[in-house]
Amino acid sequence: MGRRSLLLLLLAFLTPGAATAVPPALRALSSLHLSTSFRSRPAVAMKYSIHYIQQKVDHFGFHTDKTFKQRYLIADKHWKEDGGSILFYTGNEGDIIWFCNNTGFMWDVAEELKAMLVFAEHRYYGESLPFGANSFKDSRHLNFLTTEQALADFATLIKYLKRTIPGARNQPVIALGGSYGGMLAAWFRMKYPHLVVGALASSAPIWQFENMVPCGVFMKIVTTDFRKSGPNCSESIRRSWDAISRLTEKGTGLHWLSEALHLCTPLTESQDVQHLKDWISETWVNLAMVDYPYESNFLQPLPAWPIKVVCQYLKNPNVSDTWLLQNIFQALNVYYNYSGQARCLNISETATSSLGALGWSYQTCTEMVMPFCSNGIDDMFEPHSWNFKEFSDDCFKQWGVKPRPSWIPTMYGGKNISSHTNIIFSNGEIDPWSGGGVTKDITDTLLAIVIPEGAHHLDLRANNAFDPVTVLLARSLEVRHMKQWIKDFYASLGKMH
Amino acid sequence: MGRRSLLLLLLAFLTPGAATAVPPALRALSSLHLSTSFRSRPAVAMKYSIHYIQQKVDHFGFHTDKTFKQRYLIADKHWKEDGGSILFYTGNEGDIIWFCNNTGFMWDVAEELKAMLVFAEHRYYGESLPFGANSFKDSRHLNFLTTEQALADFATLIKYLKRTIPGARNQPVIALGGSYGGMLAAWFRMKYPHLVVGALASSAPIWQFENMVPCGVFMKIVTTDFRKSGPNCSESIRRSWDAISRLTEKGTGLHWLSEALHLCTPLTESQDVQHLKDWISETWVNLAMVDYPYESNFLQPLPAWPIKVVCQYLKNPNVSDTWLLQNIFQALNVYYNYSGQARCLNISETATSSLGALGWSYQTCTEMVMPFCSNGIDDMFEPHSWNFKEFSDDCFKQWGVKPRPSWIPTMYGGKNISSHTNIIFSNGEIDPWSGGGVTKDITDTLLAIVIPEGAHHLDLRANNAFDPVTVLLARSLEVRHMKQWIKDFYASLGKMH
Repeated sequence: MGRRSLLLLLLAFLTPGAATAVPPALRALSSLHLSTSFRSRPAVAMKYSIHYIQQKVDHFGFHTDKTFKQRYLIADKHWKEDGGSILFYTGNEGDIIWFCNNTGFMWDVAEELKAMLVFAEHRYYGESLPFGANSFKDSRHLNFLTTEQALADFATLIKYLKRTIPGARNQPVIALGGSYGGMLAAWFRMKYPHLVVGALASSAPIWQFENMVPCGVFMKIVTTDFRKSGPNCSESIRRSWDAISRLTEKGTGLHWLSEALHLCTPLTESQDVQHLKDWISETWVNLAMVDYPYESNFLQPLPAWPIKVVCQYLKNPNVSDTWLLQNIFQALNVYYNYSGQARCLNISETATSSLGALGWSYQTCTEMVMPFCSNGIDDMFEPHSWNFKEFSDDCFKQWGVKPRPSWIPTMYGGKNISSHTNIIFSNGEIDPWSGGGVTKDITDTLLAIVIPEGAHHLDLRANNAFDPVTVLLARSLEVRHMKQWIKDFYASLGKMH
Repeated sequence: MGRRSLLLLLLAFLTPGAATAVPPALRALSSLHLSTSFRSRPAVAMKYSIHYIQQKVDHFGFHTDKTFKQRYLIADKHWKEDGGSILFYTGNEGDIIWFCNNTGFMWDVAEELKAMLVFAEHRYYGESLPFGANSFKDSRHLNFLTTEQALADFATLIKYLKRTIPGARNQPVIALGGSYGGMLAAWFRMKYPHLVVGALASSAPIWQFENMVPCGVFMKIVTTDFRKSGPNCSESIRRSWDAISRLTEKGTGLHWLSEALHLCTPLTESQDVQHLKDWISETWVNLAMVDYPYESNFLQPLPAWPIKVVCQYLKNPNVSDTWLLQNIFQALNVYYNYSGQARCLNISETATSSLGALGWSYQTCTEMVMPFCSNGIDDMFEPHSWNFKEFSDDCFKQWGVKPRPSWIPTMYGGKNISSHTNIIFSNGEIDPWSGGGVTKDITDTLLAIVIPEGAHHLDLRANNAFDPVTVLLARSLEVRHMKQWIKDFYASLGKMH
């Protein structure tokens, strides 16, 4: 059970992220002139206006004609009617303002692309709730929370903007997104190529579905990150699970552990132990996602290269159980208390509340069924096989729905996507989600960019003085392709006239 | 009102249809060696097996997990596991067996393409009723009758066939369809290019939607067909409407007309007059669709070139009203009584009952909103403007739903479809639906084939000794492209191994 909650939450933390070394695709480009957007310069002020559009609750049925207000943000400081473009962020599972603030890349390139920035909130997240406070009440109210409906919202919004903003009609639109939003950006280009000339899908694990990648790849990458970030680091974590089990089998173990880990709510029952392990696992997973090269505050306020900092406390696996767990506490404390303000650690939370955990939990129980597993050998976690039956039963208990694991591959093509064009899949090699991502070019126009030292969608984050050169090159390459898409669009427009 | 019923019914008659002269795209091919499939030879016996697959009633929502049985037919006499293919008929608004029997083209080319033939019934038609007898009860039960759900059924079926039929997994699938089914074939390739390597969309008016073609183009083509099929023919029809009005204004007019036209049910009220006019209009429209070069029985049993036969009765417009309408009766009698068996004419029917008029009426009231109009100048009909408000109100009265005219263009790209590949749009120039079709090449792989003497999807009909050479050339070209798609598929498969 607790295990499922971990897996359910995993993706709910995907969004604008970090990176560093020289990617294969970029090595040839080391002498490339860097786009002007990425030279050192002061942070861009993020000024946007907030808007709402009435959307059909159900784009695919006519029994209800009900509508709801979808929120979106517009920033048009650098937009030019003449030769400009529209960068459209396909919002993912959280508050759109939070995503907007964590997608500095779009702000950094706006001037160079003469771009209007649009950030569209995903239905059932942030303020865009189809049934207000009742939106998560039951499966009837949640029925319209699907990727297809979300893409249809985006399509409707783009048509609306083109119709209502003078000068926007004949401009190229590019979809951008990170993580789940990256999947949406890619899928949007696949399904609505008439509305967007291309897509930048950053850290989008479009293959983390049924039978496409080994279910253990995710945890293996997390483990590699820890193994490489300090001597014995992953081994210390691997040993910690049995240490927890041994300690908590004793009468006073729960009490001792609660004290040692400074838990806000003491462990009282043996079933709390699994919950604790899940929470710790999720912490390591999150750290792997946000292992950025500079101080940041995405899921939590963190130092630069946080896993390296964590690993300083986990150098010696050959110590007693109590010592090992005191070290684990120090490590956890890096993640949960970098500010030094926390008085205790709360095992019911691992990240920002800007993400919509409820909605995402439902999505993983319906369409977004991503198999995960660990074996304790190739990774540092306790062995857990992927048990679809158990997963499905839990989903039915929680939401009254049954997951359809083969639907996403049927709908979006699985690995057979080569007939599409103009999609950039960027991935950071240290990001565990890269395991389910596209990391090799598929065709000349379905491109993979790999950023060796990159964590979760580092390329979508704002330019930073500590950015490794490879992410600068990645961004530069991304801009180069976007410019080409824009140029091609205007060229074909010219031909039509 | 009656007018709306005409417009609602129009497309419900789209399916395997007729043609003759030399199309621009084909002129260059006059010396082309005809594909072996089209040499004169005896009619192919149509032997198929009937199957059913459990489909989700709602592919796009998880509140209901309900399923229904979708019917499909398989004919695999000529199918070869080695180097073969699968021709997949995307069923439209009627009984799939009727479509199967009227799509001889697939049977004619099966051997040459080593093809398995699959005919998939469209949900809410034939036996594939999601709620059995209650399927058309109200908008709640009809909620799942959309193009998106139908395409999702096709996708699910193809995945199922590939999984369950030994030897089918690594074979290329080609979508084929005529009329509304042709739209589905084209849209299926656009939305699921990972499942079909190409599509043959015959007489598919994908642009007969909001703001894409003049609403009068359809009736103008009908009129041209009559004008060209006999002297004064269209002019006689044009004058007939006022003649009917003048006659029925008189006390005994209704009675006289009922007798003159041999109506089964006499006209009794003045509102019956509009109904009568609509029925007559629809008859001319249907004749334009099925103006095949040989005796046929598609919507009705008919002689070869039926409009020419009709026009023999309509040579003189300068006669009295009663005389003119007696001529009109003779003309109608060609359509309704070619067999000579009919004792009277029934104005509540115009075509075969194999078509699902209820389902289609709902579809035109929701997604498939096709504006039609006439002005009496460019066409031979009474002037009728396209009044969306009135149309929408009528839909709400009839089905409790409101049409969304801009949805299909938003979903399927309208005229901006150039990023797709491998679709052949074939149209007959005398088919009124060609007015909303793609009749010029869009790119190297989005091709238009125009058959000058072709009525509604003549190319999908079985080979016939009276076929004009241009339809033979069209079919030959279609096969050539299909072979190329199949070859490309196997070549890319080879590369992967």
